[in-house]
Amino acid sequence: MDVKQYMTRLGQQARSASRLIAKADTGKKNAALEAMAAKLDNSRHTLLEANALDLENGRNNGLESALLDRLELNAKGIDTMIEGLHQVAALADPVGEVTNLRYRPSGIQVGQMRVPLGVIGIIYESRPNVTVEAASLCLKSGNATILRGGSEAIHSNQAISTCIEAGLESAGLPKSVVQVVETTDRIAVGELIAMPEYVDVIVPRGGKGLIARISQDAKVPVIKHLDGVCHVYIDTTADYHKAIDVAVNAKTQRYGTCNTMETLLVAEGIANKILPDLAEKFGEKKVELRGCSKTKSIIDVLPATDNDWLEEYLAPVLAIKVVAGINEAIAHINQYGSGHTDTIMTENLELTRQFMREVDSSSVMVNTSTRFADGFEYGLGAEIGISTDKLHARGPVGLEGLTSQKYVVYGDGHTRR
Amino acid sequence: MDVKQYMTRLGQQARSASRLIAKADTGKKNAALEAMAAKLDNSRHTLLEANALDLENGRNNGLESALLDRLELNAKGIDTMIEGLHQVAALADPVGEVTNLRYRPSGIQVGQMRVPLGVIGIIYESRPNVTVEAASLCLKSGNATILRGGSEAIHSNQAISTCIEAGLESAGLPKSVVQVVETTDRIAVGELIAMPEYVDVIVPRGGKGLIARISQDAKVPVIKHLDGVCHVYIDTTADYHKAIDVAVNAKTQRYGTCNTMETLLVAEGIANKILPDLAEKFGEKKVELRGCSKTKSIIDVLPATDNDWLEEYLAPVLAIKVVAGINEAIAHINQYGSGHTDTIMTENLELTRQFMREVDSSSVMVNTSTRFADGFEYGLGAEIGISTDKLHARGPVGLEGLTSQKYVVYGDGHTRR
Repeated sequence: MDVKQYMTRLGQQARSASRLIAKADTGKKNAALEAMAAKLDNSRHTLLEANALDLENGRNNGLESALLDRLELNAKGIDTMIEGLHQVAALADPVGEVTNLRYRPSGIQVGQMRVPLGVIGIIYESRPNVTVEAASLCLKSGNATILRGGSEAIHSNQAISTCIEAGLESAGLPKSVVQVVETTDRIAVGELIAMPEYVDVIVPRGGKGLIARISQDAKVPVIKHLDGVCHVYIDTTADYHKAIDVAVNAKTQRYGTCNTMETLLVAEGIANKILPDLAEKFGEKKVELRGCSKTKSIIDVLPATDNDWLEEYLAPVLAIKVVAGINEAIAHINQYGSGHTDTIMTENLELTRQFMREVDSSSVMVNTSTRFADGFEYGLGAEIGISTDKLHARGPVGLEGLTSQKYVVYGDGHTRR
Repeated sequence: MDVKQYMTRLGQQARSASRLIAKADTGKKNAALEAMAAKLDNSRHTLLEANALDLENGRNNGLESALLDRLELNAKGIDTMIEGLHQVAALADPVGEVTNLRYRPSGIQVGQMRVPLGVIGIIYESRPNVTVEAASLCLKSGNATILRGGSEAIHSNQAISTCIEAGLESAGLPKSVVQVVETTDRIAVGELIAMPEYVDVIVPRGGKGLIARISQDAKVPVIKHLDGVCHVYIDTTADYHKAIDVAVNAKTQRYGTCNTMETLLVAEGIANKILPDLAEKFGEKKVELRGCSKTKSIIDVLPATDNDWLEEYLAPVLAIKVVAGINEAIAHINQYGSGHTDTIMTENLELTRQFMREVDSSSVMVNTSTRFADGFEYGLGAEIGISTDKLHARGPVGLEGLTSQKYVVYGDGHTRR
């Protein structure tokens, strides 16, 4: 069987399984999640062996150490997967929730019911724990899933897949509710994103290159997250110490995450005072600073070019720009930002209202570190990713983002005149 | 200037206008809508003249009479446009609505704010009143719009566009908030749907062919409505008279609408009794009946083929199938339906719950004519179309469907540990 045929078969099986999982009751879905957790716990040895094989192959193929790190599954990683399954089981089931059910003047009753999207294709790299995370969120939200992990993690993903299948079967659900693609052939990705008859949405998780390629070629909708070029804007009305704390936290609490600040905007009226203090703090953390000419006239920084405003460093590097005030800050964010997460530091209500309304990003904050932009911190329970798209889901995507709403109408023989 | 350059300019102007209209206050948007209404009222003569020119050209070019009908604008049509503008002005402004604002354990407050999508491209045929409808809904929801009407309506649309521009200007809003494409060159459509940097979403309104082509080629998300293959399923538990009333209404109240029933499903246990009565009613209305072999054994019908189950007749033609019961009915709807609107006739609660959950359509009804599936009947105030997509908006799309939600986060210097 060639790859195209193989993927078509997975697609058909997923479509058919999606009808069953859409109507599966909450108890059954939770039982499957708990059974997967138990199976992972009982398969630790097999999982570590499979992962060791992937790591060995990775080293032999010269995989860089950052990727090897992400590929590695250890006892703690397995604990985390198991804990994640318990957490998803504990989340409220979004499927079937009816809201806004209201009587209309005609006498009919109209509301909206939350329903699964159908079949979700997940394409990801390296980290094998994504297999469990994604599968569990899709299952809980009543969707069938086709998972396509990186070829470097194939043995780990297959071992995890065995546990997932065992969990599904022990709860009386078909194995095809969650299918892990078994071939490492790259053609499989091209097929997966071009089967609108079998796949309703694609969620790519991985580097910018992967996501851009998939968005370009997909024939089905993509819930995507391209860049995280996040900003903190410090206004003259900011509380001085909060501003320093938040700016330092947003940049340095973790460097490699998409919600890390990459550009700091400072109002002209406070720049002379605050920039030296910030430079000292960032200096202690060994953060490289690049600044506009005004910044350069106040503190010792490398010169920033226009490219710096577009850059997601994911590293101890920060671009700094002095702006006239909130209007220039908002214009800069809307022009150069990636629509991810942006914060204003101010104690002023009017400026807060303006910033909240006018910044066109998936998360807009006041006096809060951009690092808070994630599904757990927002109370979604878990997240499958952060969307920088405008349609459907914007920001951290949890169970709700994997569903949509259909209308439900109750009548008593109502006809239209 | 060539068409590509022209469309790029429209796109750039729309993107820039979208920033202004997104933050325009409700009063200003309503003032623009009311000013447009007044301008239309004062331009009746010009509008009718422009429309007469389109009609004359249409007749000279051999446009079929159904299209000429849709193209025609008369005094009543102008009244309807004016009334529509008043209605949209009276609707609540969805922009800026904050929901679910809750404190999290970390102390931050997280909620969601409804925001415009940005720039909406509308592609439509014939009916010039769509120009006003679409423009008003996009404006009220804080979006900039680029409207591309049919070449056959170009003079009518330009005359309407003049009124819209006058309304925008008198409210102090830039004309480029609503732009009507001035060229009839088909290349303009291809450009409009392939400018993701300037256009956030495309809403095509028109025939199936147009929508399929646009969906195929678009490089931006499309909120679309392909077919309306709607079903009424009559169960043995149905109230006999309600079932007949609803089935007849769903088919015959209007033939050419997307929410008209195209296939009737009847449970085996009630078919012998109800089909002759239904045949009589449909006979009075001169509806051509096509049936499965079981139907054919009960009443005199033409034979239905598999193609009939997929057909959107938009005409006095009805396909009838006898099914074993609710499970076969649901399976048939999910296989052959278009995910638009489907109704069950039953007095049984368990069957209602099953039908509501398992039918995968944008509107699922009980004891209600499918003809109720529209934005006005649902209380949306107005609709820009009915979406049979699964992501973002499903079913009638009103102001809310032209917006999305971003997260807003309030803190007090909160940093992440």
